[in-house]
Amino acid sequence: MLYLIGLGLSDETDITVKGLDIVRKASRVYLESYTAILLVEKSILEQYYGREVIVADREMVESSSDEILRDAQNVDVAFLVVGDPFGATTHTDLVLRARDLKIPVSTIPNASIMSAIGATGLQLYNFGQTVSMVFFTDNWKPASFYDRIRENRNIGLHTLVLLDIKVKEQSLENMARGRKIYEPPRYMTVGQCAQQMLEIEQIKKEEGEGMDGVYGEESLAIGAARVGGKTEKFVSGTLKQLCDADEELGGPLHSLVLLGKRTHELESDYVRDYAIDKDGWDKIWKRDYDSKQ
Amino acid sequence: MLYLIGLGLSDETDITVKGLDIVRKASRVYLESYTAILLVEKSILEQYYGREVIVADREMVESSSDEILRDAQNVDVAFLVVGDPFGATTHTDLVLRARDLKIPVSTIPNASIMSAIGATGLQLYNFGQTVSMVFFTDNWKPASFYDRIRENRNIGLHTLVLLDIKVKEQSLENMARGRKIYEPPRYMTVGQCAQQMLEIEQIKKEEGEGMDGVYGEESLAIGAARVGGKTEKFVSGTLKQLCDADEELGGPLHSLVLLGKRTHELESDYVRDYAIDKDGWDKIWKRDYDSKQ
Repeated sequence: MLYLIGLGLSDETDITVKGLDIVRKASRVYLESYTAILLVEKSILEQYYGREVIVADREMVESSSDEILRDAQNVDVAFLVVGDPFGATTHTDLVLRARDLKIPVSTIPNASIMSAIGATGLQLYNFGQTVSMVFFTDNWKPASFYDRIRENRNIGLHTLVLLDIKVKEQSLENMARGRKIYEPPRYMTVGQCAQQMLEIEQIKKEEGEGMDGVYGEESLAIGAARVGGKTEKFVSGTLKQLCDADEELGGPLHSLVLLGKRTHELESDYVRDYAIDKDGWDKIWKRDYDSKQ
Repeated sequence: MLYLIGLGLSDETDITVKGLDIVRKASRVYLESYTAILLVEKSILEQYYGREVIVADREMVESSSDEILRDAQNVDVAFLVVGDPFGATTHTDLVLRARDLKIPVSTIPNASIMSAIGATGLQLYNFGQTVSMVFFTDNWKPASFYDRIRENRNIGLHTLVLLDIKVKEQSLENMARGRKIYEPPRYMTVGQCAQQMLEIEQIKKEEGEGMDGVYGEESLAIGAARVGGKTEKFVSGTLKQLCDADEELGGPLHSLVLLGKRTHELESDYVRDYAIDKDGWDKIWKRDYDSKQ
């Protein structure tokens, strides 16, 4: 049996009791390591499980899935995924491959950022589609998120923005020389995300595309850090304010929520509690959001 | 401390290790019982936790929150919620009340139907806002879900429909006579939901409101039963077909997903695997969905 087991969002004790039982008994234990991270080291997991954990990077999952699935018709293989196995990313490829090989598959769900973000105090019913933000480079600034956010905002909905992580990346030079030397991991911050969002808004305006624009420096948003963890932290304010909120938010992982205009007053009340500038929040809330959709 | 602890979706072992530790040590343990249910009885939970569990119905949570929060400045109170504490419903009222009383609050996230629905094989990124469906009566057929679904479908997104449950309801007669006699619990099925959706579509068409309509008998959808549990079951087909799929789906809880036109081919491939009529699925998929948005 192939077990896809969600680990939740924070530390080794966020696994479910059911999941832990399976991990302790499985023949092999893999940890998917390229779409999200826990806030603890692999060694802590190994100690806690009493098991060796094999780190499965993107290359391994995409090109060596047969090794992961080896003999899973007869033995139990646990494939651990931070969050929920079908959360921010899906591992449908691995499941389809298992189906082809007549390997039974079982999923152990867990918390995902896509529902845990409700801890902000915003109603999950009021969220539209989730978008992703990748690290921009000088000549690569993918902006497909912009149209998605526009769709959400047109109908008044919040948007959860999931932020890029880079693990096991090679520098161009090392890649060119075939040296398997990897850069230190990078995790996008709320500040970087807010900045990139405003950068794209600026570009779109200059292109004359989004005449009205989709959002701006005074749009209300929430920065979220380490959701579900003991040091969980929320900061709310304008996109402009959030550009400088990284220190207050602290270490990774970060996410950002852009408020929709259909925001209920109770949601605003809850969220203003952790506003950088409560009076400013109230003013913009009243001017741009309250009963505006 | 007030702990809001998610129980996950299925049985007593879906609690996280962290959550279980808190439950075992807390002074009082409440189980929120009116927005969702686990697939096991309270007595099983009590045995597993080694603790008495106090069932908190809607009346208690809404009007006796002070009893729930009693002395939580000094002792630990665990408030258990099926799914994620901030999932399908939010308990922000209780948290705001605790804030007023200077009681610290901590949340232990868990799987929610809103992310676990990814087990259907549909990408969570392609979901719009979630809607709820309540039991219709002869003269009460609330249809606000219809406009929400329209908004989602206009931009090609899937819609998760959460289905009503009725626990501890009184008959009108018993209510009038002040008799605290309760009807047996009722859980809406996928068949009932599909039927109600088609009924509203019919009414809207007669009213001439939705000239084009939002969906119809041949719209593709997925019925989901006991998501995250050992007997998890998915059935896909047209809304018309799903009207008669309850037997195949089996017992509660059920949810329904209405497909959006932005569905990726890989999503369709995955989902057709459990279609009632695979050839029919392929035909409609090709005609109405494939690259249509």
